[in-house]
Amino acid sequence: MKQWVRYEYQGAKGFGTLTEDLITIYQGDMYNGAVATDQSVPLEAVKLLTPCEPTTMIALWNNFHSRAAKEGWSKPNHPLYFMKASTSFLPPGGTIRRPEAYDGPVVYEGELGIVIGRQCRNVSEDEADDFVFGYTCVNDVTARGLLREDPLFVHWTRAKSFDTFCAVGPVIATGLDAETLSVRTLVDGTELQNYPVTDMFFKPRQIVSRISHDMPLRPGDIIACGTSIGAGPMEQGCTVEVAIEGIGTLVNEFN
Amino acid sequence: MKQWVRYEYQGAKGFGTLTEDLITIYQGDMYNGAVATDQSVPLEAVKLLTPCEPTTMIALWNNFHSRAAKEGWSKPNHPLYFMKASTSFLPPGGTIRRPEAYDGPVVYEGELGIVIGRQCRNVSEDEADDFVFGYTCVNDVTARGLLREDPLFVHWTRAKSFDTFCAVGPVIATGLDAETLSVRTLVDGTELQNYPVTDMFFKPRQIVSRISHDMPLRPGDIIACGTSIGAGPMEQGCTVEVAIEGIGTLVNEFN
Repeated sequence: MKQWVRYEYQGAKGFGTLTEDLITIYQGDMYNGAVATDQSVPLEAVKLLTPCEPTTMIALWNNFHSRAAKEGWSKPNHPLYFMKASTSFLPPGGTIRRPEAYDGPVVYEGELGIVIGRQCRNVSEDEADDFVFGYTCVNDVTARGLLREDPLFVHWTRAKSFDTFCAVGPVIATGLDAETLSVRTLVDGTELQNYPVTDMFFKPRQIVSRISHDMPLRPGDIIACGTSIGAGPMEQGCTVEVAIEGIGTLVNEFN
Repeated sequence: MKQWVRYEYQGAKGFGTLTEDLITIYQGDMYNGAVATDQSVPLEAVKLLTPCEPTTMIALWNNFHSRAAKEGWSKPNHPLYFMKASTSFLPPGGTIRRPEAYDGPVVYEGELGIVIGRQCRNVSEDEADDFVFGYTCVNDVTARGLLREDPLFVHWTRAKSFDTFCAVGPVIATGLDAETLSVRTLVDGTELQNYPVTDMFFKPRQIVSRISHDMPLRPGDIIACGTSIGAGPMEQGCTVEVAIEGIGTLVNEFN
């Protein structure tokens, strides 16, 4: 079990593993045989970056029994997903910004993110874990007022792709059993989401398998598993935390 | 007015401009001050690649008066768009493949593609041309049977992101006046689409401006402007041509 971070330190980017408050610096390919150096740097000395840089950022909708029951949604036969623009990534500690010329609700959605570790195409559920590098926290921020602005077309990509609308981190944790995890979201310290991965319609192995039959997935790609009940609008100046045991807490201000 | 191509020749990738059947080889950054060498290679000696490699591939839906009138769709207030996976790109001459385990209709959609040339954020319609590198042909292939398989969610990204489902090329043509263009699609030599850019709800300058207010666009990104009437299913073994004057003809077989 490791916790991988990417960071900027003295103007240069690096990556490594986090233990307590110390980052052991690694070299090579994070997804494939990276080698520890004998150097380390204190967490407090670096600026954390998003822990990976996905080529493809996929996010699911309507993936929870309890949310679907509450909303009256039917169970899907296949993961329902859209893409978020890679320009929307935000590191841990970064500030979520309201889009210019939009004054509607900006909503947090705490989610579990699957990080792919190996090129992955047409894999079975049983094989899926071999292609997963680890897990991270995602805040799938949404301009909810734009989502259903058009009567015929839901703006999934548009409402979720503004700059800073895809917070990811703080680490990628390897060696976790995803089905034991719960996702908690706190706003200014108050817990507003707390739901287990076991409530998913499609659990991580199944998601990876199903989507790998639609398109190949590549190292560093993220699949955000969708959010459950409790997602809601953020007030200007609030702090949102997405917390998952074994991964830690992704903290971002909205301002 | 230039016609830019990317190609593979004797195992190496290159790019240049096409004049008649000869490619003048360039060096540097295709989008920014590329320099012609004194070398050239015959078109017939190379394997053409997609003329650019978008980080973000955006495609519009419901962007034509005549199509909307036919289908009874309302005019949108903002471009309606989704993303296609970058793993779905197919070069000129490449073969469009039916997804495994899908036996429904696979549909061609001939479209005009806008290729971005400069990082582009919050630009006005009047400025938009400064950020456009040129135009290309796109076949926005769609597994139509999957699109509305779920009663609550349209699978825009999934149905349009299978391998080989985003044919692009053969060239990026610069210096065109997009609003004078028409898009024609021929299947086995029979013209099945022929529609003018002037029929778009959102024309290229307006599309670039509007989307640049949603997310920054980067050199090589493509926005496919949507298709009009006449898109339809392909028969196994057919040849599809998307032809736009000044750009040429994008030819792909479906097999």
